[in-house]
Amino acid sequence: MHANGPCKADHNPGRGPTSHPRVQSKLRITFELLAECPQTRARAGLLHTPHGTIETPVFMPVGTQATVKGLTQRDLAGELGVQILLANTYHLFLRPGHELIRRLGGLHTFMSWPNAILTDSGGFQVFSLSGLRKITDEGVVFQSHLDGDLHSFTPESTVDVQLALGSDILMMLDECPEYPVSHEYARTSMERTVRWARQAMAHYRRHATDPSRQALFPIVQGSMFPDLRRACAEALVELEAEGYAIGGLSVGEPRPLSMEMVEAAESILPRSRPRYAMGVGMPAELPEYVARGVDMMDCVLPSRNARNGYLFTSQGRVIIKHARYKDDPAPVDENCRCYTCSGYSRAYLRHLFQSGEILYAVLATRHNLQRYLDIMRQIRQAILSGSFPECLRTFRSASPDAE
Amino acid sequence: MHANGPCKADHNPGRGPTSHPRVQSKLRITFELLAECPQTRARAGLLHTPHGTIETPVFMPVGTQATVKGLTQRDLAGELGVQILLANTYHLFLRPGHELIRRLGGLHTFMSWPNAILTDSGGFQVFSLSGLRKITDEGVVFQSHLDGDLHSFTPESTVDVQLALGSDILMMLDECPEYPVSHEYARTSMERTVRWARQAMAHYRRHATDPSRQALFPIVQGSMFPDLRRACAEALVELEAEGYAIGGLSVGEPRPLSMEMVEAAESILPRSRPRYAMGVGMPAELPEYVARGVDMMDCVLPSRNARNGYLFTSQGRVIIKHARYKDDPAPVDENCRCYTCSGYSRAYLRHLFQSGEILYAVLATRHNLQRYLDIMRQIRQAILSGSFPECLRTFRSASPDAE
Repeated sequence: MHANGPCKADHNPGRGPTSHPRVQSKLRITFELLAECPQTRARAGLLHTPHGTIETPVFMPVGTQATVKGLTQRDLAGELGVQILLANTYHLFLRPGHELIRRLGGLHTFMSWPNAILTDSGGFQVFSLSGLRKITDEGVVFQSHLDGDLHSFTPESTVDVQLALGSDILMMLDECPEYPVSHEYARTSMERTVRWARQAMAHYRRHATDPSRQALFPIVQGSMFPDLRRACAEALVELEAEGYAIGGLSVGEPRPLSMEMVEAAESILPRSRPRYAMGVGMPAELPEYVARGVDMMDCVLPSRNARNGYLFTSQGRVIIKHARYKDDPAPVDENCRCYTCSGYSRAYLRHLFQSGEILYAVLATRHNLQRYLDIMRQIRQAILSGSFPECLRTFRSASPDAE
Repeated sequence: MHANGPCKADHNPGRGPTSHPRVQSKLRITFELLAECPQTRARAGLLHTPHGTIETPVFMPVGTQATVKGLTQRDLAGELGVQILLANTYHLFLRPGHELIRRLGGLHTFMSWPNAILTDSGGFQVFSLSGLRKITDEGVVFQSHLDGDLHSFTPESTVDVQLALGSDILMMLDECPEYPVSHEYARTSMERTVRWARQAMAHYRRHATDPSRQALFPIVQGSMFPDLRRACAEALVELEAEGYAIGGLSVGEPRPLSMEMVEAAESILPRSRPRYAMGVGMPAELPEYVARGVDMMDCVLPSRNARNGYLFTSQGRVIIKHARYKDDPAPVDENCRCYTCSGYSRAYLRHLFQSGEILYAVLATRHNLQRYLDIMRQIRQAILSGSFPECLRTFRSASPDAE
């Protein structure tokens, strides 16, 4: 995009000197299973994309508006070793607009991000953020939360928006019902999601320049009813997608129900394809989802909680505003190797937080994301070395309220 | 402060892999003149401190609350090559408190900053930020802008506060009169500043553990009256300080008057000591102050303007919110080697600005500081190579409104 001066070779925003060696990327999306736990459903694999290979199971940081709040692309791809991040179609559709991003070369170029990108369909934000909205069998009409303008998403149009963004992994438009709903409503809604999925896949296969270079994931819905989850998964598997998501979790239901829904869907989904549990979870939940066959997760918790003063550590949570940290010279987490913990004290972070300083968000987000990514690396290593059941026991024996 | 793990050696927050080689630091503050321009008063030198050597003339970024807003200490000391930064005594006195910082090992340790720190006396913020305030010959009583509590600063107490902070360069309490004031008021005020200076220096020499490891700078005042500026400088020179500041500039006066005041003071100040012009200025003014014998400057403009969407470039200003940058794929400044310009477009920065994203402040501040530091490096190189007059002409021939 820019002319290169003599100093610029060292300044690639996504690639710091400490960045991880990049596994050779392939030109099409493929999933390679490396190991499966003999006692649980946990798997370790490699998800190859044109923007690099992703080691699974993976946690994907959320970059809602084409930025993970407070971190540079070099922080993310370099020291943190992020191989894939998530961006929100709803937000980018409204501002700056997908057509502008397409003209500027797509989302990777626009935000200077060298690794893979997954975009959601926008449906979830329509339900959670927008003003007036109306769901019909054709799609959803909604009012922008920014200026009140009316827009619509259809199964086809959200594919078009994501093709304009140039995402590596696209998500289909789905309806995410609130919790609780009746079995009847859940069935109607799930069946609509399945119809939309068929339309979306047909549209994608007709309109993507090269459908194998990107992947469109259907989303299993069905509220908290295992029969509906299974029925939905069975219908979606017929689409022969490159991967499958499990949506409609973390909408207020008790955690055992979330796990049961994942189990129901997972029993149907093909072993050879990655499974993505959307919008989960707390640190202690990550190994639980992995134990149920989940390969990909995303959540705003590490970054949002960081900004709100809630830090995750190997010894439990740190609420940084508490007076006990006022003159605490220790790092947030003695066991953490992140930039924040390598040299800044809790006392300094508390001062920054109390003063409303930007650097607080920068340092806190860096730490919390490192914690999530480290947990996932630890889990992956355990799966590869055959010790995942032990790893899971260790996580479970930690105080359930630890993080 | 922290135990070192195996990974930690690479994570010193202040020292990135690209940091500048550190000139051997000395245990006491000394100023070494390297070159003087034969046609102007410009000088290039080295200011040695226990926290590294500073190449002068130097621009000092402002870290009001022990943080340069949006930048990590590694960003500053590493890629930007900042050798000294400024922190505000008034703010740190109120929060988190100088005694807490002393207990935690001083400001360098507290904020993990390996290089030199200059602190102001707090007087200027008392005048500009606090609520009720009252100046007497003893000092100033003021109300905190945070909680309304009453506090006081005396010439002695601000020295004590700065000694607790452990600054390399301390500033004396002065009165900075508003503009304009009568000659009579300016004289009374200046004479008070001189009396305070004598008290401060006596107190410092009695109470500093090793007065030669730090330096206490008096501040030349006198409003916009050259005779008062000269009289003030003459009185202060008797204190045999390690450096001298020129205060009371940029308080609303026309720029030619500021320059005249610097000339008046400079004609008296000893050649062998660094001169610090406080709180200046716009990029085009930097070479003008240097041409008048100034060695050190600080200003919130590069960082504050960055956050407000005003970017300084070698081709003039960029107001990033303007619609013309909406789909502009060029970097902020094609000639800049900063991290921001090495890979992010104006279109992306505008999107971040419009979305209120933290990353905007991070990237914009980085760029604006780089611009200031580059200008100073360019000026210094010109002085060393004997081409400063030409350099000054080049700056003057650029559009005066360029930045």
